[in-house]
Amino acid sequence: MIYLDNAATTKVFDRAISAAEKAMSVDFYNPNSTYGCGVDAKNNIEQARRTIATVVGAQSDEIVFTSGATESNNWVFECGRKNQKGNVVISAGEHASVYECAMRLKSRGTDVRIVPLTREGTVDINAFKHAVDGDTTLVSIIHVSNETGAINPVRELVTTAKKISPRVLFHSDGVQGLLKTDMPVSSLGCDLYSASAHKLGAPKGMGFLYIKRGVNMQPFIRGGGQENGLRSGTQNTPYIAAFAAALEHFSQSANKADVMKIKTYLYDRFVAVGYDPVIPLDMSSAYILCVHIPDVKAEILQNALYDKGIVIGKGAACSGSKRGNRVLSAMGLSDAQAECCIRISLFADTKYEDVAAASAVIIETAEKIRSNHVG
Amino acid sequence: MIYLDNAATTKVFDRAISAAEKAMSVDFYNPNSTYGCGVDAKNNIEQARRTIATVVGAQSDEIVFTSGATESNNWVFECGRKNQKGNVVISAGEHASVYECAMRLKSRGTDVRIVPLTREGTVDINAFKHAVDGDTTLVSIIHVSNETGAINPVRELVTTAKKISPRVLFHSDGVQGLLKTDMPVSSLGCDLYSASAHKLGAPKGMGFLYIKRGVNMQPFIRGGGQENGLRSGTQNTPYIAAFAAALEHFSQSANKADVMKIKTYLYDRFVAVGYDPVIPLDMSSAYILCVHIPDVKAEILQNALYDKGIVIGKGAACSGSKRGNRVLSAMGLSDAQAECCIRISLFADTKYEDVAAASAVIIETAEKIRSNHVG
Repeated sequence: MIYLDNAATTKVFDRAISAAEKAMSVDFYNPNSTYGCGVDAKNNIEQARRTIATVVGAQSDEIVFTSGATESNNWVFECGRKNQKGNVVISAGEHASVYECAMRLKSRGTDVRIVPLTREGTVDINAFKHAVDGDTTLVSIIHVSNETGAINPVRELVTTAKKISPRVLFHSDGVQGLLKTDMPVSSLGCDLYSASAHKLGAPKGMGFLYIKRGVNMQPFIRGGGQENGLRSGTQNTPYIAAFAAALEHFSQSANKADVMKIKTYLYDRFVAVGYDPVIPLDMSSAYILCVHIPDVKAEILQNALYDKGIVIGKGAACSGSKRGNRVLSAMGLSDAQAECCIRISLFADTKYEDVAAASAVIIETAEKIRSNHVG
Repeated sequence: MIYLDNAATTKVFDRAISAAEKAMSVDFYNPNSTYGCGVDAKNNIEQARRTIATVVGAQSDEIVFTSGATESNNWVFECGRKNQKGNVVISAGEHASVYECAMRLKSRGTDVRIVPLTREGTVDINAFKHAVDGDTTLVSIIHVSNETGAINPVRELVTTAKKISPRVLFHSDGVQGLLKTDMPVSSLGCDLYSASAHKLGAPKGMGFLYIKRGVNMQPFIRGGGQENGLRSGTQNTPYIAAFAAALEHFSQSANKADVMKIKTYLYDRFVAVGYDPVIPLDMSSAYILCVHIPDVKAEILQNALYDKGIVIGKGAACSGSKRGNRVLSAMGLSDAQAECCIRISLFADTKYEDVAAASAVIIETAEKIRSNHVG
């Protein structure tokens, strides 16, 4: 199998599996116990936290482990606004976990403002400036779109928002941005940043919320006071160890320039046969390529390719069961066009030869589907 | 090492580790993808859910996976009350994750009623009857105390509460009760029941909330709509597989009568040298023994025993850093007495010989500490 679907099939790094296995078999102490072995477990967690902080460009005490970015995003929306009044600004390109949280606030009467996307899939900056005002308490803008790979200028948006409303809390969903852009978390300037371990080669069910020093967050999940009182519940030591190992491995093995070369090859190859990449090459992540293949339904192509040993994506798995595609629609694509968009994800260890071989099969298969459809 | 501290050191069953490892290395698909391998992952989750439901005595669709009981308990308190008005009833013996959630509701103005404990560590039933009234929206009573092993008569309390307030939602924190009492979840009659995988031999960071059919719960963590829309976030397939394997193994290997024999041996041994078990033998779980050793501080004994290769507990790890012990105080123990209480936890695979050997060392060490202290 050739895996070109990050959302669905990021293979867990062997090194992360080893770290988790080791922690599972020897590290069966509660890190919150007060004696020897519990203290050892706690030390292991803190060592992992330091590794992660170093790799992502943050301070250790800014990293709070959660069960994943979906939890982190819910936390931000439920507890981030010190003042429960005031409006909330998101973009039309957010992941379901941000979008649904914003809708929950809206159903409770909060003024939720949704900034439109440009045709290039990024936040419309002019509209953003009009959406944020002195009453804005929370802004949440996705760093890199999970659907299209479009990169939002988070740093610029933070500066803009803070100029308009100095006390605004700025959050970014960084699931597809972490280590996959040139910006370390601290340089983005945002107050809060969500991440999931499984997009970087660790198992599913682990993540963090970065909370910038000085930002006062109330806990979302309360109880025993773990994670410095910010996230209760006995920590998942094995996955924390796996997260650190995966991040370290990813940061060492991923050469973004190489990944971009592979993506460029694919991009040019698709353009040459008349397919339309949804986002210009230089405005999107090296790791995600979303392409519109006219008159070829992505679901049919995906299934046909799966039978041939190639795994590709279409729309976010997290919105897989819903009709249409909220994010592609927001960019101006019709439902019919959105149904014909595939998403190819590259990873730190994706091989050029695999992609070259896969692209030939993708095109051949797509053309066959099209001719069946037309003929 | 001899492990006699469930809270701190439940060893992960080899079978659960194997299940998690297998799922981690081959099962790297997103269970919410719409094609072949994603569907396989989803099938694995549903198979685990069926196994768990069968073992605990519930229907599959009543089991919703979470990151652990702390999350489950927070979910109940944040989303369980259809009518946000009305009072809430808990006991003085709740775990921190229930207690802190109740305190959060109180800080928002909810009338939170805390039912006192009897000297035997269970809910004072007379006081319970007076606390619940027609305006009660939520009752949360721990099934088995994590501090003392005291077993609350949940079934009777459910009947009592529903008679007084038919639409009340009854929740029980079942972390120490699941599979460790004779009552399958469905027989308890409660609407909601929380569990953590790591108290039954699976890794930390997994649990469920049992939601009785017909009970309408709003999701706490929203987004992609996983877990039938009730708990979003990509599922932790490896730990779900481990949870099912651990529960199955526990239910097959645990012979409660054997465990009770070991506990009885310990109980009698301690009584013979003048120590005071905090709960009468027949009113507490076979798996937990909390003993007051006059004039011997538990922390000193715990550390001394650790150096001799014996791991015991004292107070809940989840409240380890706080002074005093809320639950023991509620039973009428002074702070000085509570500081001299140790907690011994047995497990499905605890060996009689280990406990016999350990008890001699515990008594010898305690007497030495006492004579040093007195001398």
